Amino acid sequence: MDFIEETISSRDIYQGKIINLRVDEVKLPNGTVSTREVVEHPGGVTIIPVTNKSEVLLVEQFRKPVEETLLELPAGKLEPGEEPLSSARRELIEETGFQAGKMEYLFPFYTSPGFTDEVLHLFLARELKEVGINPDEDEIIRVHRIKKDEIIKNIKTGRIKDGKTIMGLLYFLRGDY
Amino acid sequence: MDFIEETISSRDIYQGKIINLRVDEVKLPNGTVSTREVVEHPGGVTIIPVTNKSEVLLVEQFRKPVEETLLELPAGKLEPGEEPLSSARRELIEETGFQAGKMEYLFPFYTSPGFTDEVLHLFLARELKEVGINPDEDEIIRVHRIKKDEIIKNIKTGRIKDGKTIMGLLYFLRGDY
Repeated sequence: MDFIEETISSRDIYQGKIINLRVDEVKLPNGTVSTREVVEHPGGVTIIPVTNKSEVLLVEQFRKPVEETLLELPAGKLEPGEEPLSSARRELIEETGFQAGKMEYLFPFYTSPGFTDEVLHLFLARELKEVGINPDEDEIIRVHRIKKDEIIKNIKTGRIKDGKTIMGLLYFLRGDY
Repeated sequence: MDFIEETISSRDIYQGKIINLRVDEVKLPNGTVSTREVVEHPGGVTIIPVTNKSEVLLVEQFRKPVEETLLELPAGKLEPGEEPLSSARRELIEETGFQAGKMEYLFPFYTSPGFTDEVLHLFLARELKEVGINPDEDEIIRVHRIKKDEIIKNIKTGRIKDGKTIMGLLYFLRGDY
């Protein structure tokens, strides 16, 4: 507990659609005063959807912040009051068109805790059944399948460069879930 | 290329110490107009420092956005004009007090491309030599060592919950770098 940074003051900069921004003035345990820029995020889910052929479903979509089309595990943010499990079931169907017979919670993780509180809950989805895709109106998505033996090559060559996706695929490759 | 979101207008909200915030109005390929909140980040490095006993060095520090003390791989942001390799060498010494005889570049990844352009460059550091710790004045850090066979347990129990750290440790466990 001796690491804690005490908040001296907090200033709201922006309240947005997905994120808020605030700047905190903090006092460190050694007495130093500093500022911390904090991006508040509602949190979300990431799903590793595994087919009965041991392929993983990935979604391809344009990401404005990086001006690139990325290959990612299906994911999405929590709606107000929504439980991670419900969110994972909803996002998997919306983004891939597949419903999971089994949806197992693995663990939560922070995406970039130096400046944001975003936490993602990782799920493993199996026994997939196609029910039809249903993306949000401002999402344009294409579904891909990746085989186990293609994963490492796609990470090393930079074809897959989303952190949560690399993490989820490396976890899947261990096969001890 | 048919996924690209054209920027119609862009509004600067905040220019900060580490991050900037802007809001873009975009036009999707299907004609829908939407907004995208974008957190601009200078990017950074993450290092997997492996000792000659095959332990990995982790750093413990308080992270204001999540109000928690986290165990993470050494990491830091790029200084203006700094190359990732130089940054990795500098951050490893600053945060752990160890210098790497070998510093190998693995791959870059995005931490949360839905709302930020932050890219981290992942390095593997070996042949470590202790030279003394030298943290930034507003960083309070404690160095830990984790053994190979403790990694998965620490991820599953939530003792390690930083995404880049879980990703780097899972990559290290593969042992095929």
